[in-house]
Amino acid sequence: MRNLTQDNITQAVIARFAATPDARLKEIMTSLVQHLHAFAREVKLTEDEWMQGIRFLTRVGHITTPQRQEFILLSDTLGLSMLTVAMNQDKPAGCTEATVFGPFYVEDAPTYDLGEDVANGAAGIPCQVRGTVRGLGGEPVAGAEIHVWQADAQGKYDVQREGLAQHQARGVLHADGKGRYHFRSILAEAYPIPDDGPVGDLLEATKRHPWRPAHLHFMIQAPGYETLITHVFRNGDPYLDSDAVFGVRQSLIADWVRQPDGTYLVEYDFVLNPRKDAA
Amino acid sequence: MRNLTQDNITQAVIARFAATPDARLKEIMTSLVQHLHAFAREVKLTEDEWMQGIRFLTRVGHITTPQRQEFILLSDTLGLSMLTVAMNQDKPAGCTEATVFGPFYVEDAPTYDLGEDVANGAAGIPCQVRGTVRGLGGEPVAGAEIHVWQADAQGKYDVQREGLAQHQARGVLHADGKGRYHFRSILAEAYPIPDDGPVGDLLEATKRHPWRPAHLHFMIQAPGYETLITHVFRNGDPYLDSDAVFGVRQSLIADWVRQPDGTYLVEYDFVLNPRKDAA
Repeated sequence: MRNLTQDNITQAVIARFAATPDARLKEIMTSLVQHLHAFAREVKLTEDEWMQGIRFLTRVGHITTPQRQEFILLSDTLGLSMLTVAMNQDKPAGCTEATVFGPFYVEDAPTYDLGEDVANGAAGIPCQVRGTVRGLGGEPVAGAEIHVWQADAQGKYDVQREGLAQHQARGVLHADGKGRYHFRSILAEAYPIPDDGPVGDLLEATKRHPWRPAHLHFMIQAPGYETLITHVFRNGDPYLDSDAVFGVRQSLIADWVRQPDGTYLVEYDFVLNPRKDAA
Repeated sequence: MRNLTQDNITQAVIARFAATPDARLKEIMTSLVQHLHAFAREVKLTEDEWMQGIRFLTRVGHITTPQRQEFILLSDTLGLSMLTVAMNQDKPAGCTEATVFGPFYVEDAPTYDLGEDVANGAAGIPCQVRGTVRGLGGEPVAGAEIHVWQADAQGKYDVQREGLAQHQARGVLHADGKGRYHFRSILAEAYPIPDDGPVGDLLEATKRHPWRPAHLHFMIQAPGYETLITHVFRNGDPYLDSDAVFGVRQSLIADWVRQPDGTYLVEYDFVLNPRKDAA
């Protein structure tokens, strides 16, 4: 302990976690220290670069508010979020796939009746959304709670706009007795993730574009089923193959169909995975 | 890109950094993504744990101010800071060793003449500090700029105390024509790192103590020499073998000698490494 070197310090740090009562926390901290040190060693991180890293993380922390989660954005752009989702995807074939949660969900979104307009004044071309929520066995999930949120025509979520008196383009609905849902909203458009902060600077410095293909966010919950967090992506979007946060899955792409009156219609059927511990 | 799995996502993320103009940044981001993903994969990080990590980092960011750098504290307690210092220690034998910078340095510390009291009102038993600054060849480094900072008798740095009108127990001095320095301050005491934030919670959850053995911080700069960032530790301290931030080195331990009048005296001679690019 009085003469730690670059070769023995990792073991010394890990030993310091030996008395951690929670076995899982001990496992996580041990692995984290090993990989963090392996990274620093592999690139032979300089003290100057270390300080740049400290300053970068400080900026990420300081720009983060209840309305803007820059750490999630960082995790998303480094592929860590989608990796975590993918690793925890052990659903049977046939279930709707999950994707990243993203930084823009809020807990106090308004509740709407089926058929209502969740846009609530957000700018955009009107769009109908409808489909069913079923379980893996084909059974309708009556009353499934459907959280939906999306960006407006300018690519902004309501929480990115200051001074809005009420939530726009997000809401909570409940499927009917046959698991059917339908609501009105606006056309989903591609948008750049917020790139005026440190994550944007990182994308710029690495010549990465900040765009996400057009999508609707869904979180669907029902007793007896695993919660599904996913998107429905808009077919034909130019960013489907280069999503800034690595969230696209082929099975989540749907057609937004232009109607004679200029509005759009998209249909998507969700399949939930029954909980293992459900009777 | 439309069907990334836990097995191929890492390569897809790395490919996205392929056009990074700065080769070093590309190297760092590539290695960071590999090791970050390897960590998540090794522990099979759950989505819940991922969210706990996001919340933890958010707390670290929000408690960080110009007076309190919780990210440095986190890096210190995970051994990353000391590893970085150790890797960049390629000084010849005979030079004073470096150790962690710590989160409590400030840039606007007052300048003092040799012999003055840098305590400036900080509570503690009076202590004389003296020694020499030399180069590796034994030559005195006349006029070397010596930054010193330390905690007070309650284990607090001035920046941890609200409402102080002026800096205490820190200052900038210049060695005399023979490289000698001497100043008055207060006795260094062991102290816990700030443990009322997320890093403190992590230490508590892992049953690690937050204590650092008593020390003085030094940063010494002179034209033609590499900047030295180090501590002088107090011999006999009970925490020398379990420093919360892994910073102790045997060669940096000195005797604080109690004088007949109850004050203390510590002597330490620094040896700077000549710059390779200096004539």
